[in-house]
Order: sequence, then C-alpha cells, then structure tokens
Amino acid sequence: MTDTLNVLENITYNELKEGDSATLSRTLTQDELVLFAAVSGDVNPVHLDAAFAAESMFKERIGHGMWSGSLISAALATVMPGPGTIYLEQNLAFKRPVKLDDTLNITLTVLRKEPRNRVLISCNVHNQRGEQVVVGEAKVIAPTERVSLLKPSLPEITIAS
Amino acid sequence: MTDTLNVLENITYNELKEGDSATLSRTLTQDELVLFAAVSGDVNPVHLDAAFAAESMFKERIGHGMWSGSLISAALATVMPGPGTIYLEQNLAFKRPVKLDDTLNITLTVLRKEPRNRVLISCNVHNQRGEQVVVGEAKVIAPTERVSLLKPSLPEITIAS
Repeated sequence: MTDTLNVLENITYNELKEGDSATLSRTLTQDELVLFAAVSGDVNPVHLDAAFAAESMFKERIGHGMWSGSLISAALATVMPGPGTIYLEQNLAFKRPVKLDDTLNITLTVLRKEPRNRVLISCNVHNQRGEQVVVGEAKVIAPTERVSLLKPSLPEITIAS
Repeated sequence: MTDTLNVLENITYNELKEGDSATLSRTLTQDELVLFAAVSGDVNPVHLDAAFAAESMFKERIGHGMWSGSLISAALATVMPGPGTIYLEQNLAFKRPVKLDDTLNITLTVLRKEPRNRVLISCNVHNQRGEQVVVGEAKVIAPTERVSLLKPSLPEITIAS
C-alpha cells in the first residue's frame, strides 16, 4: 500500500480540466513567524514581538503577507499541478491580516488551459472564519509527464526558546 | 552612535518621491532551501535533493520561486518604505531559476504616488551575473509617521545535518 501522505504526485496538462480545484490547509504558528522572518529577512516586530504588536493597528502578531503567498506556491508545486510544474507568474492581493493560530485554506481552481501547456489558475486563501485573506492568479507550465515521487523528509529544525 | 544595521527606519509617504530606489541583497544557501521548504510546505526534491535535481531540467538544486518573492516583501517591509508599510498587492513574473550560492539583488523603484498614501513600486531581482530573475510591481500603503525601531533579534535556528 502506498502511503499517499508521503508521495508527491502530479496532474499533467492533459489531465487538467477547466474548473478542477484542489485545496491545502495550514495553520500559522509562532514557528512560522520566526522561520519566515529568518528566511526572508523581514524581521518587523509586528510579526515577532507580542508586546510591540499589541500596540500596533493589528493588536496582535500577524503573519507575513508573503507567507500566504508561499502557501499558494506550495499548493501549486505539491498538489495541483504538482511536481514538474514551472512557475511563470503570480499576482496577489492581500485582503486581511493573518493572526497567530489562524488556519488558512488555499483553494486552487483551473481557470483556463492555454497553448504550450500553460495553465491559468485562480488562487483563493480564506481563514477558518471563511474570510478572504488573499486572492490572486497564477500562470504555470503544467507538467506533461506523470511524476510520482517520495516526499523528501526535511532535516530537523530547532528554534531556541 | 546608532548602529544602523540594528535599526529599522522607514520612509514616509510624504518623503517618498517618484524615481526613488532602494536595494537589498541576499545569497541563496542550503539553509534557505530547507527553511523555505519547511515554512511553505513545498518539499519538492528539485529544491532539496542534489541527486534528484542533477537529473532535472535545472541540473542542480534551485531556489523556490516564492523565496525571491519573499525577499521583495522583506525589502518593502524593512527598507523602502519600511516599518508601518501595509502590503496591498504584488505581481511577480519568474524569469530564471535561482541556483545555490546565487546572490540576488533586489531593486525597488517608486513608480507612482497615488491618493490615500498608496504607492506603486517596481520590483526587480537580478542575480550576480546581472540576469533578471524576477520582475514585478507592488502596491502598498506607505506609512505616514516616521518610525525608527530596534531590529528584533531572532532566536537561534538550528538545522540538523
């Protein structure tokens, strides 16, 4: 039996149909705030310092807007179309802040298949209250060959407390 | 004497002028590949597995496209306009892969000041060979009040080898 949780499988250009959709969910934890600050270099205290954020217009720590963008890119790269996808374009409109412990639901929908394996995909991110957080569109080159591969396991990452 | 490396200072809407530009540089290391995979969930082996990547069309491990996007967002949030900026929109076109040890130079240029503190900013990312990697535009609400604050230091992050 294949453990589907540990397999990355794609959907080829030929298999994709307009209207097809796929979802991915993820919760914003303190670890994501620290890791995204480290990997992007955006160390604004509104993302990192609870006391500072309490005095800000957001009243509490918020996620980096582009973290939501990175979840969209992960959904494209791992779910639909999945491995072998080449990212051409992405536009994003940030509609609402993401708070600590919010769960984001990313929904991708195939809007249009274009020549030369191009696919236009709508990208919608809602929080657990159903509020739209980010909306946008992606253009990708969908894979033409079926790929199924074991999900690499990441080395352990430790954040000092 | 203020250590400017440890201070985040912004540029207000009133201070910004069309044509103003700012830059930020960053090098893609193996750590970024692992951390971005962890924080986004995009664990595609083309970013993580040297042997797999060698057999791919890219011939070696490449950075996540949205990592370049995250550098743009960090430049907007920490350099120009800096702290207090509210991110409204971003579009990105991914032009070339980023290889391990590539140094990316992010250049932001004010394209247009709009009513209600909106600013349209062009975003250009080149590698150390001067090749365009990512190009796009951001729309932000620029801060109206001067902010100068100490850069929070991140907790130590350890990646098991």
